[in-house]
Amino acid sequence: MTTGTVEINNESANGAGSARSDGHRVVEVKLGERSYDIVIGRSVLGELGQRFSGLFPAARAVIITDRTVAGFHLASAEESLRAAGVEPHVIIMEPGEKTKSYAGLMAACNGVLDTRLERGDLVIALGGGVIGDLAGFVAGIIRRGMRFIQVPTTLLAQVDSSVGGKTGINTGHGKNLIGLFNQPHLVLADTAVLDTLTPRDFRAGYAEVAKYGLINQPDFFEWLEANWQGIFDGGPEREEAIARSCQAKADVVAADEHEANQRALLNLGHTFGHALEGMAEYDAERIVHGEGVAIGMVLAHEFSARLGLCDPAVTDRVVAHLQTVGLPTHIGAIPGQLPNVDLLMDFIAQDKKVSRGSLTFILTRGLGQSFVEKGVDPAFLRAFLEEKLS
Amino acid sequence: MTTGTVEINNESANGAGSARSDGHRVVEVKLGERSYDIVIGRSVLGELGQRFSGLFPAARAVIITDRTVAGFHLASAEESLRAAGVEPHVIIMEPGEKTKSYAGLMAACNGVLDTRLERGDLVIALGGGVIGDLAGFVAGIIRRGMRFIQVPTTLLAQVDSSVGGKTGINTGHGKNLIGLFNQPHLVLADTAVLDTLTPRDFRAGYAEVAKYGLINQPDFFEWLEANWQGIFDGGPEREEAIARSCQAKADVVAADEHEANQRALLNLGHTFGHALEGMAEYDAERIVHGEGVAIGMVLAHEFSARLGLCDPAVTDRVVAHLQTVGLPTHIGAIPGQLPNVDLLMDFIAQDKKVSRGSLTFILTRGLGQSFVEKGVDPAFLRAFLEEKLS
Repeated sequence: MTTGTVEINNESANGAGSARSDGHRVVEVKLGERSYDIVIGRSVLGELGQRFSGLFPAARAVIITDRTVAGFHLASAEESLRAAGVEPHVIIMEPGEKTKSYAGLMAACNGVLDTRLERGDLVIALGGGVIGDLAGFVAGIIRRGMRFIQVPTTLLAQVDSSVGGKTGINTGHGKNLIGLFNQPHLVLADTAVLDTLTPRDFRAGYAEVAKYGLINQPDFFEWLEANWQGIFDGGPEREEAIARSCQAKADVVAADEHEANQRALLNLGHTFGHALEGMAEYDAERIVHGEGVAIGMVLAHEFSARLGLCDPAVTDRVVAHLQTVGLPTHIGAIPGQLPNVDLLMDFIAQDKKVSRGSLTFILTRGLGQSFVEKGVDPAFLRAFLEEKLS
Repeated sequence: MTTGTVEINNESANGAGSARSDGHRVVEVKLGERSYDIVIGRSVLGELGQRFSGLFPAARAVIITDRTVAGFHLASAEESLRAAGVEPHVIIMEPGEKTKSYAGLMAACNGVLDTRLERGDLVIALGGGVIGDLAGFVAGIIRRGMRFIQVPTTLLAQVDSSVGGKTGINTGHGKNLIGLFNQPHLVLADTAVLDTLTPRDFRAGYAEVAKYGLINQPDFFEWLEANWQGIFDGGPEREEAIARSCQAKADVVAADEHEANQRALLNLGHTFGHALEGMAEYDAERIVHGEGVAIGMVLAHEFSARLGLCDPAVTDRVVAHLQTVGLPTHIGAIPGQLPNVDLLMDFIAQDKKVSRGSLTFILTRGLGQSFVEKGVDPAFLRAFLEEKLS
């Protein structure tokens, strides 16, 4: 089978064959003056200092990370920066979604202000989606905007949250309701650090990889069905899948940075997913973001089938693959009490994708044929959810 | 004497003469797609609804204001919006600089999220600089950016803080250290509402008017020396002074939105002023922003004279005019304990205008001949301040 045409620059001076296994992949996010590179490869974290001082000579740095990530990767990051003559400040947050809160924002802002770094200096986000979203937001509002670098350490962050400039925090009203579009100046995705993830976290990130196939690349989804084991095992399929995911996201972001339109496709599974996370109060014991997306993608396919848009066999195929890699595929798989419909509808209505009272969802007409539907009838949705929860 | 060439569009269909007394002045802030108008005139608040629905048909609105302003002007704003078919939500904050804080930010954000307004809806900032800075910041980060309108109700906000897109809050580290460049979509400056200001607040705003003369328009400063009474009394000189101040600011902002360079001139008197406000813990009983700017402008002239840059007679002239209108002109005029030099130097070093350790100040070579000096020697500054505080 073919993997389709993926335009990926290759930094390696070697031939294309060995570059695929040894070299770094570079995906460019094309946003004019604010364009930046995503560098993907094993051990690119060791190049942090060199790349930093090459791009930002004489700038200073503060690393924002969390306790778990710090235990695994902080020493490497600091060492690399020091070797390049940069002595970084470090702010260590509590791990977990609850750090993406007003309290976490205040603590991180105060920490950066304590360093006395200036507008031209850099915030380095070393961590998963929580750290990337928080640190990117912090960088955007300290002194009305510092520069920042994303060093995503989870699969989810590497293929999704570190790319495209969405940053922010959650509030009691829902996820990511406070934040900014703020593009990083560089993304360093070290595929070797993913070996330190728990299987559950790796799987959760994989849901976002599969999403790119389900949005508009059925050939990529097919390739994932055949090659997922290599991605999980750390074979060359891992770089391939990450580069292809980043390219897919970069293309969408370059075309529609502020989500006026097509960028909304990236939210496939997310409106349901966010609502499920919300009803579980972002308790990672019960559900993490990627699991919400997995269940949400299945719900989006089921709902599309219910609307007569999509063959139910497509849903079966999606469910089968997500189950194969160990992801949850229905609401009942979330431990604890089932949410009630009112609460779910409430979270859905609060979602940013609401426009003028009618509900916007990403629906699909088949495998990899997603589209933005702005006129979903709330009553029909409620009936669908009631059935799912019964 | 001449008032110089001020390019101000005039909406009135009447002749230029009567337009000067009856019509509105419109100053355009030219920022490409993000350009917007500042509409200046008596009773433009009454046109809020009509202008709102004209620019943003079908959009909804939330007014953010404070208790004091609400008492004077909220009913007029609501009435105008309702007459245009817009039923606004209202969030009322405590008056005072302390509202520009993390706590104020959280409260305002939660208030806006409670309304369930969407990205295309508008935040209307009805109030002085505190409300404008806070509401503009809130609008910029709710759902990663709502639209907003400034309705400045103080002289200071009309000539300075509502124009140019600087928004934000203070922290324990200093003023405006957290925030955004976020341009409004419209500014409505009703000169009649200024009649409700206390004399002290009006004077404080006047310091920023005088600042435009001292930056680079000596003829405007001269005109102010001759015409200040008309501005205070609400004569046609008031619209003239506000329009000319807004035009001066709009020109600088259009040339250098993000303060890479010349926009820093607008900070004349502000580095000292912010430090004085900081040492007084933003206690308005002791000092308000415009008073800090007045003292700061005098210090900037004195310091320039000490450096041999500026004739001391210019300082005398500046002091004389500021004293004439009743503004404080020396640190000793601030009630309570005098700050110590270490604390002041600390606030100055934390100022956003610091770059690479050397201090940036706006200094002057004469009346209306200000310039950005990036290499101020901290030791020399300390000696100067020690003398001022002795």
